[in-house]
Order: sequence, then structure tokens, then C-alpha cells
Amino acid sequence: MKEEVFYGRGMKKIKSDCPEVYDAITKLNDVVYNGKVLDYKIQKLIAIGIVTSKCDESATEKQMRSAMKELGVTPDEITDVLRVVLLLSGMPSFTKGMRILEDIVK
Amino acid sequence: MKEEVFYGRGMKKIKSDCPEVYDAITKLNDVVYNGKVLDYKIQKLIAIGIVTSKCDESATEKQMRSAMKELGVTPDEITDVLRVVLLLSGMPSFTKGMRILEDIVK
Amino acid sequence: MKEEVFYGRGMKKIKSDCPEVYDAITKLNDVVYNGKVLDYKIQKLIAIGIVTSKCDESATEKQMRSAMKELGVTPDEITDVLRVVLLLSGMPSFTKGMRILEDIVK
Amino acid sequence: MKEEVFYGRGMKKIKSDCPEVYDAITKLNDVVYNGKVLDYKIQKLIAIGIVTSKCDESATEKQMRSAMKELGVTPDEITDVLRVVLLLSGMPSFTKGMRILEDIVK
Amino acid sequence: MKEEVFYGRGMKKIKSDCPEVYDAITKLNDVVYNGKVLDYKIQKLIAIGIVTSKCDESATEKQMRSAMKELGVTPDEITDVLRVVLLLSGMPSFTKGMRILEDIVK
Amino acid sequence: MKEEVFYGRGMKKIKSDCPEVYDAITKLNDVVYNGKVLDYKIQKLIAIGIVTSKCDESATEKQMRSAMKELGVTPDEITDVLRVVLLLSGMPSFTKGMRILEDIVK
Repeated sequence: MKEEVFYGRGMKKIKSDCPEVYDAITKLNDVVYNGKVLDYKIQKLIAIGIVTSKCDESATEKQMRSAMKELGVTPDEITDVLRVVLLLSGMPSFTKGMRILEDIVK
Repeated sequence: MKEEVFYGRGMKKIKSDCPEVYDAITKLNDVVYNGKVLDYKIQKLIAIGIVTSKCDESATEKQMRSAMKELGVTPDEITDVLRVVLLLSGMPSFTKGMRILEDIVK
Repeated sequence: MKEEVFYGRGMKKIKSDCPEVYDAITKLNDVVYNGKVLDYKIQKLIAIGIVTSKCDESATEKQMRSAMKELGVTPDEITDVLRVVLLLSGMPSFTKGMRILEDIVK
Repeated sequence: MKEEVFYGRGMKKIKSDCPEVYDAITKLNDVVYNGKVLDYKIQKLIAIGIVTSKCDESATEKQMRSAMKELGVTPDEITDVLRVVLLLSGMPSFTKGMRILEDIVK
Repeated sequence: MKEEVFYGRGMKKIKSDCPEVYDAITKLNDVVYNGKVLDYKIQKLIAIGIVTSKCDESATEKQMRSAMKELGVTPDEITDVLRVVLLLSGMPSFTKGMRILEDIVK
Repeated sequence: MKEEVFYGRGMKKIKSDCPEVYDAITKLNDVVYNGKVLDYKIQKLIAIGIVTSKCDESATEKQMRSAMKELGVTPDEITDVLRVVLLLSGMPSFTKGMRILEDIVK
């Protein structure tokens, strides 16, 4: 996870107030995104699928932006993720994801 | 989606009782899993991430089994998906996913 | 809500241990299912849609059984509810609902 | 589903970029809302119950507006739906639904 | 629950339009927050944990504000609640909770 | 978290296959449950509230058992947690929690 996502406002407060929580999150984040076999980009696509399925708007926007900026993930790739969201989590999650994507790329 | 997943008990009933719903699902399923850029295997990994995040045991088991059987997805690949689940959806989803995976591979 | 649903095991314990909670739930239940304009049967169909969307198996089964027994709701009516679940909450909720329905009616 | 709901911003993008996904959704939507026994209005009330239970504000507003505009669903009918949401999904979903309804009708 | 939380806009409408629903909610609220053994403050901390886990922004803000105002709950106490949210519901719920807390206390 | 919860089957596999993930989880777990101001027992009650709200049966049972065994949490204390679940997450989560508790204590 890059700065834009990781150092959101909530995280800055954690870093100063609870440095031990911040360290544990940093360690977990590193371990999660250094999988044995899947590369980081595929894991980011999975992350987009998960947060979009939860209808969490701000997390979805953050994950999409960071995936595009850090890893060059394209809108077409994100749309293919959202297809899976449509089948498994239904229309409201899907259209919300498409709208967020549209707002980012326009 | 292959037979094992697609023709679960619920779907057989739909096919006989509401063939037009069955047709619409089949069409949607085909369209979802024929993305523009991402291949089917990556979409299946995304699917595993989404259903595991929902703590839906039977759907998680089905998606894992079908991914391994149809596409040769390995336990290590699924574990890398579950790492993302751990970070984004927390311990209970993650340990449930690991336990289901363990029951499948043992 | 009829006895079968309302007097599940959890509720019996509440009735004996925390009668004031039991009374508050009974009052709420009465008020909820005595709407101004919608009849009880339509509200039960809405209830089935909500619990099936949550992938909550035991609650889904209870609501379906009680709707069929108390109010003569038919499998076809429940299937029409599940169609909405399919569109708004995705395939896993829908197939789970269809499977539970199949187990009840067979 | 009428234009207002169906042709939200996300859907326009889907129609131009992924017409095959758009077609599959249109087909699914038609099939879902042409049930065997329940009429469209009851299915819309079920839809309102489901999206309100998910705490999805934008989807809840869309479903309520479209139900009122297309089908003449009244605020009292929606309030009776929200009663079921209160019992099955708790206070936060219920008060959010009441607030959205209030903003629409005022 | 104090006025600020309880008399949100949605609740005012309920009080005037459906007084019997309002009464049932008031009764339930009283019974819930007068537990046998746990004091009100601990129950409020539990409430913050639950609504933050659901990624429900407005409910989270309401619960935090009311806990701080009514019961003198401190930001450090809320942060300790959010630690549990981090472990059990993942990063997006946690960072959202931290951001809401930051906006309240600044 | 004590052995019973922490060393569930899924976790054993993680310890042997992905020791770096296991270490990160252990560190996170320690940091989460060593809050600045709230004691461990209150955090465990919050944990029970969160997992019960998610309708996650196995996680709910684990959290309840571990709270009772490790920390001497009583059934009455858990019932007071479940009261909050009733208000904020609705009847199905509440009755499921009561039933799981009943099965543990009987």
C-alpha cells in the first residue's frame, strides 16, 4: 500500500498516538502484500473486489486510486473486477463501484 | 463456473421451475467471467476473496473447490487471497477461510 | 411472528432470565407487524428478503417455514422474493435461499 | 426498474463500454421483476427492505424514489417496510431509512 | 441514549407519525441499556464497536459523540475499542473509525 | 486471546506454512488487546458484540467460550452484550447469540 492509501488521516493519528498499533499494521500490511505466489497487482485487484462488495465508498475509492497510481491498473481491469462483484454481491455494489470508477477517470 | 458450482441443488430447482431466471443467470455468468482484460483465473481468485470476506461458508467452499478443480488454483494461491481478506475483513473471515481450505486439501 | 419462530431456544432463555427484554421484544414485534397499510403477509415476504440477503441460514429457514405455516405463503411466492435477492445481493445469497426452500418443500 | 434508477451514472458507462454486461443486466432485471405470482409493487417493497438493511444510503434513496415515482408507493407503505427493517436489522438501518424517506418527502 | 442520538431527524418523524413504534423503541432502548451487570458506559463502548464494524459512518459518529458527551468517554477509550475493530473487522472499518474520531476531537 | 481461540485449526496451518503471517497476527493480537485504558475483559465483551452482530456462528462461539474460560465472563455479562446487539443489529443476530450462549452454558 502506498502513501496515499496508507497515510490517510486516520493513520496519521494512529502513528502519533499509538505507535505500537501503527507498527503492527505496517508489519501486517507488508506480510499480506508479499504473498508466496500471487503478485501485488493481483492482490490489489482482489482488494478492490472485497471493498466494493462491502459498499464502502471511501475505501473503494482509495483502493481504486492507489491501484491505478501505484501499479498502473487500468479502468478496464477494474471493470473486470466489478463484473465479479455484480455476480456475487448484486447490482447496488456494482453500480456504486462503476460510479466511483467513473468519477476517478473522468 | 463449472458444473460443480453452477449446478448446486438450488440451481437445479431454478432450471426446472423458472427457466427464464436460469437463462438470465447463465448469460450473466458467461458475461461476468469473460472480462475484457483479466483472465478467468484471476477473476476466480477475486471471487474467493469476496465470498470469504462475507463469512459465507458454503459459498467459500464451493468457490475454492471449483477454482482448484477447474483451473488448477493451488492452496498457496488461495492463501495469498486470504492474506488480503485478513487485512481488509479481519481475523474471523481469515481463520474461517484457512479452516475451509485445510478441510479441502487434507 | 408465530410460536415456531418466536419461541426458538434463545427466546425461551430470554423469557425466563430477562422478562423485561422479552416484553420489549414482544411489544416491538407486535408493533412492527401491525403496519398502517401493508398487511402481515407482505411484511413477512419482506422479512424473507432481508434475512436471505444476509446469508443467515437459520433465520432464513425460520422465516420461510413460519411464512408458509402461518400465512400460507407458497414456494412460488418465496421464489419471487428470491429473484429480488438475486438482483440486489448476488448469486450466493440467492442459491442459498433456493437450497433452503428446496429442503423445506421436499 | 425505471430510467431514474436504471440509468444512473454507473450504468451509462457500462452501456457504452461493456454492452454485453449491460444486456445481461437488462435481461436479469426483466426476469427478476416479472415474477410468477408477486406483482412488481410488492417486489419493489422487498427491494427497499433489502437495501435499507444494508445501510446503503444511495441505493436506498434510489429505490425509494423510484418506487414512489413509478408505482405510487406511499410514505406510509415505505414506513411499514422500515418497521420490518427495524426488527430484523436494528436501529441504525431503521433511522437511516426514516431520515432518507423524510428527505425525499419533505 | 440521550437526546442527541435518540431524537435524530428520522426519530422525530416516527414520534409524530407512528407513536406506537416510537413507544416500542423507547421501551426497547431502556431495557437494552439497563443490563443486569454491565454498566451503561461499557454497553456504549460495545455499541461503538458494533456500528464501526458495519462501516456505518453516520451511526458511528452519533454513537461516538453521544458516548463522549453523555458519559465522558475519552478518545483513548474509543481508540481501544477501535483496536478490537481492527482485529475483527479489518483495516477499512478501523481507519474509518479513526478518521471519524479525529474529526470529532479536533 | 488464549490458546483455544488462537490455535484453531486454521491458525495451525498458518503457523507452519506462513510463519511470517503468523508472527504479524500474533503481534497485532498483542497490540490490540493491550489497550491504553480499557482492560482486556471489556475488550473481549466488545469482541463478542462485534462477531455476534455479524451472524458469524463459529466466531461467536469461540469468543464466548474464550471469554468465559480465560476471563471468567459470566452468562449475564454476555446477555448484556447481546442486548446491545439486539438494538443495533436486530433480532436474528440476537436470538442466534442467545442460542449459542445457551448451548455453551447448558
